Amino acid sequence: MESFDLKAYMLEKCQAVDEALERFFPASSGLEKTVVEAARYSLFAGGKRIRPILCLAAAEVVEGSANAVMPAACALEMVHTYSLIHDDLPVMDNDDFRRGRPTNHRVYGEAVAILAGDLLLTEAFGLLAAPSAFEAVPVPAERRLQAVAILARAAGVQGMIAGQIIDLESETREVDLTTVEYMHIRKTGALISASLEIGAVLSGASAEALEALSRYGRHVGLAFQITDDLLDVEGDPKVMGKSAGSDAAKNKKTYPALVGVALTKEIAQNHVERAIKALDGFGHQADPLRALARHLLVRKA
Amino acid sequence: MESFDLKAYMLEKCQAVDEALERFFPASSGLEKTVVEAARYSLFAGGKRIRPILCLAAAEVVEGSANAVMPAACALEMVHTYSLIHDDLPVMDNDDFRRGRPTNHRVYGEAVAILAGDLLLTEAFGLLAAPSAFEAVPVPAERRLQAVAILARAAGVQGMIAGQIIDLESETREVDLTTVEYMHIRKTGALISASLEIGAVLSGASAEALEALSRYGRHVGLAFQITDDLLDVEGDPKVMGKSAGSDAAKNKKTYPALVGVALTKEIAQNHVERAIKALDGFGHQADPLRALARHLLVRKA
Repeated sequence: MESFDLKAYMLEKCQAVDEALERFFPASSGLEKTVVEAARYSLFAGGKRIRPILCLAAAEVVEGSANAVMPAACALEMVHTYSLIHDDLPVMDNDDFRRGRPTNHRVYGEAVAILAGDLLLTEAFGLLAAPSAFEAVPVPAERRLQAVAILARAAGVQGMIAGQIIDLESETREVDLTTVEYMHIRKTGALISASLEIGAVLSGASAEALEALSRYGRHVGLAFQITDDLLDVEGDPKVMGKSAGSDAAKNKKTYPALVGVALTKEIAQNHVERAIKALDGFGHQADPLRALARHLLVRKA
Repeated sequence: MESFDLKAYMLEKCQAVDEALERFFPASSGLEKTVVEAARYSLFAGGKRIRPILCLAAAEVVEGSANAVMPAACALEMVHTYSLIHDDLPVMDNDDFRRGRPTNHRVYGEAVAILAGDLLLTEAFGLLAAPSAFEAVPVPAERRLQAVAILARAAGVQGMIAGQIIDLESETREVDLTTVEYMHIRKTGALISASLEIGAVLSGASAEALEALSRYGRHVGLAFQITDDLLDVEGDPKVMGKSAGSDAAKNKKTYPALVGVALTKEIAQNHVERAIKALDGFGHQADPLRALARHLLVRKA
């Protein structure tokens, strides 16, 4: 476990995900090509593919097939990308740069950016249901339908949409740590947790394994968002591809803003430990997930 | 058939759909209540529920159960409503009124309107996959997954998104009738055709019945959009709840603008006839669909 090479693992998975995304979301030469190009601009903007990798890693833990979960792994990245495009819009967070490049609406205009987000969200669900996507390794319809339900719950009113509306509204009013946690769980945690659950469900995991991976996902999701907050305070803009301090400038309610950097680090550490603890029932197949959780505490971007 | 009471039929179905939507998309008292309220504002804005009714009517033709298709009927209306909210945005069609009421962004602001649309789109897919939605009449996962695929195809790059981007781009350039038809088939026709296909698929229709209902849907979808274009030229704003002539004012490329009112009426008539012809293999159970198609030629709103 000590010797697990997380960097090599992530690079390999990232390449596999990029290849699959290229296959599942190809460029278009039709009359609608602009919106497809816009969606692909953000989809292939150098994302770290954290959600797809978590999905693939969860499948590995329960001895599932990477081919069987790859369409879902891609769907998760598409939903993540849609949320970034819409969140960056001038009427939302009004961000001009993301991952060191101009945001979608700055390149394609707001109308096309909105449609590109809509497209990615729609096609993500389409991918989970497309017969062709699962030709390599057939997956029972029951499991794929369950994946649709998990993805919708994570992206919908109990998940990302709730997180984003609370985030928007909290910019202009005082909120406490409970609200910030409630928001984080939905805005970031829900899709990260869903990534693990979908990987498990599509692989036919037992209820016990599913619950363990889901618990890991909830804690890693929170740790991920909290360390993201920390990076905004302490991170190197060159490594992150966006300016540090942008949360504070927008009066975003973050952990560091509410409880200070030291306590925030303690909270992150605690969630990482609980995430790893959730994996106790698994053997070395869970080493990638353990290493991923630990990495959050030292990440630079 | 001559005596079929379409008005009563539509009223009854409309009420059933409204009740189901109330159940499947209830108000929220949580921190995210604003976005749910915004979505419900447009969802319950007096829509005619054409797509859900077509879905329910298709199920009747193949002797399916209304309860079994109702979640899908509601999902179709949710996707339709999402598209209206996003299309009305200032950066899209910039419409201030719809069905006689201020558009979503005029009441809730653009950020909430975008999120409300995202929410409706997401929850539509969630509804097709939610175990609880199908408790009344269990439907095999295989069929529900097929419904997800049909809905995604109609809403995605081969459907509504393509229609909307072509519509936006055609405002500033010359297009021919072929392009307008290509656009209409995607922007309006795809979801209408999907409504019939989903009603058929969830009811376990034969491939032959599915193909006939799909063909009906394609022609009715086109007739619906063409008569919509006609209403914009000839309609009574009081009945329609929006100003006539708004297409021309925005330089929208419509059938009347390209080939004149008389030929447009002929084309609409032709599509209605072909839609009814597609139902030849069905008995009196298809009377509602026949009456619905005929109604398009005399509709006032």
